[in-house]
Amino acid sequence: MAGADHARWMGAALALASRGQGRTSPNPSVGCVIVHDGKVVGRGWTQPGGRPHAEAMALEQAGAKAAGATVYVTLEPCAHRSVRGPACADLLVASKPARVVVALGDPDPRTNGKGLARLADAGIETVTGVRAGEARATMAGFLRRMAHGRPQVTLKLATSLDGCIAMADGASRWITGDAARAHVHLERSRHDMILVGRGTWDVDRPRLDVRLAGLEARAPVRVVMSTRAVDDDGVVRITSPEEITTLSGDHLFVEGGAGAAAAFLAADLVDRLVLYRAPILIGGGRPALRDIGLGSLDAAHGRWTCTDTRQLGSDRLEVYERVRCLPGS
Amino acid sequence: MAGADHARWMGAALALASRGQGRTSPNPSVGCVIVHDGKVVGRGWTQPGGRPHAEAMALEQAGAKAAGATVYVTLEPCAHRSVRGPACADLLVASKPARVVVALGDPDPRTNGKGLARLADAGIETVTGVRAGEARATMAGFLRRMAHGRPQVTLKLATSLDGCIAMADGASRWITGDAARAHVHLERSRHDMILVGRGTWDVDRPRLDVRLAGLEARAPVRVVMSTRAVDDDGVVRITSPEEITTLSGDHLFVEGGAGAAAAFLAADLVDRLVLYRAPILIGGGRPALRDIGLGSLDAAHGRWTCTDTRQLGSDRLEVYERVRCLPGS
Repeated sequence: MAGADHARWMGAALALASRGQGRTSPNPSVGCVIVHDGKVVGRGWTQPGGRPHAEAMALEQAGAKAAGATVYVTLEPCAHRSVRGPACADLLVASKPARVVVALGDPDPRTNGKGLARLADAGIETVTGVRAGEARATMAGFLRRMAHGRPQVTLKLATSLDGCIAMADGASRWITGDAARAHVHLERSRHDMILVGRGTWDVDRPRLDVRLAGLEARAPVRVVMSTRAVDDDGVVRITSPEEITTLSGDHLFVEGGAGAAAAFLAADLVDRLVLYRAPILIGGGRPALRDIGLGSLDAAHGRWTCTDTRQLGSDRLEVYERVRCLPGS
Repeated sequence: MAGADHARWMGAALALASRGQGRTSPNPSVGCVIVHDGKVVGRGWTQPGGRPHAEAMALEQAGAKAAGATVYVTLEPCAHRSVRGPACADLLVASKPARVVVALGDPDPRTNGKGLARLADAGIETVTGVRAGEARATMAGFLRRMAHGRPQVTLKLATSLDGCIAMADGASRWITGDAARAHVHLERSRHDMILVGRGTWDVDRPRLDVRLAGLEARAPVRVVMSTRAVDDDGVVRITSPEEITTLSGDHLFVEGGAGAAAAFLAADLVDRLVLYRAPILIGGGRPALRDIGLGSLDAAHGRWTCTDTRQLGSDRLEVYERVRCLPGS
């Protein structure tokens, strides 16, 4: 089968993988498509909480049709048995597909190459590295945890063209429009956890939920960064950005305000910046960021690369990623 | 001849018109192309200081080949004789083209329809309104002066993603890269006048010239906004944004700093915003704008529309125009 076909079907698996983002910790969100004679006979994606795995779900759908088929999966099938289920590599061997196409090897030491080896030993053709970069993006939190022992951190900023997040008197409703604000809720739904600083918590007492039809159940765990106790049992508290290593969940969404944003940037703990910009000028308003400990302008350069831009109504979304090496990249 | 051909040839005339931008005050910068049997036989654009006119230059090139040709011109040919030269409408009548295609009617009361009428009276076919919007952009300063008795004002801002124009200690070299800074010089070359506030003048004593090979001679007149005298004979001084009505020149480029920018915005005297954005975060730096007298966030919306974006090295250029009606638009 041609490489173009592999890339196309892997695209379908990647789309399935994106469904679970922010819901599968401590497991990565994986997608799987099984194709027989050009037809999809099974589809799966990691279910909330991490089980069943994508391959198990897709294989159950495919049944006997998996024999001789090509299996597309965004991460190397796991090689380790668990109390929560059998190893996907074993399930695949038993199903006798002709070929397994993988986007990315699994850095988990219990699998790391063993999954692919087990398939090859059983006479199944294996292909790896198909759309690996995109697969990496769908499981950034898992990879971040494996590499750095902490969640992937996304910082959200919503500003005017002159970089203000509010007028001088604090008025901030609204800078961005409906479409941009809905997109913020979509981002929330893809994160396990959402964090605000103490100032924002006390002043706005934000709901921090997901207000999109059909996604209400995906509200992230709420985290407040504060050195003082928070009088809300439903909230997790940390006292500094460095404490995110103690949080369970692989995707943290930092929503504000300027102090919390600056603290995470100063600690170099922001991996992804989601910037919503309205085509307005405020002038003399509240800046998006406080001091981030920048020593010189030279030091500011080369840290961020723009990976996505799109129009949301009259606002513009820009996504930047911190230039930093992940294992395997 | 088909409308698509008209649009294509008018594109060539518009490109010629752009050559004179910022150099032809008090005249508009006009472009003219004369086409005979599908071949260009004459090209012209308004020369520095406003004369010769584009049509006169193109007709001189075309000579006898203008007879029976189609003349494309971005502005209605002038109908008024002047001590500086004959009326272009008369020159055209004498050259006997088959057809004159015009982008925009001339709002100057001495011409306003009379130029086209004189051509039609002489049996020349006339077509108007071809790519009028683009023609309007090439002569924005002229149209602004006709409508509002003042130059067209462009405000330049060069910021970090968080809207800073310098670090807290004032360091601003460099936020943007070489390509963006070269583009600023290109913008300067298209303006008659360049303005800075007193603070920028005193601290930076900027050269405000055009440092692009071949365009050095296009340095704009330097204007400083200050209530105190300026000890430089080569500089024009105004004391407030409103005084731009006293300046000769149809295109003013406001380069900084935050106080001058805010003053022009507060007076609603910015027509075009040229925003260079570097992919860096500064945090707690100097904001791009001081107070602009904004009463509410609602009032900030609907004032600016993005008309151009482009990548300049790692920086992003965005051009916004103030939503405001010009005569004929």
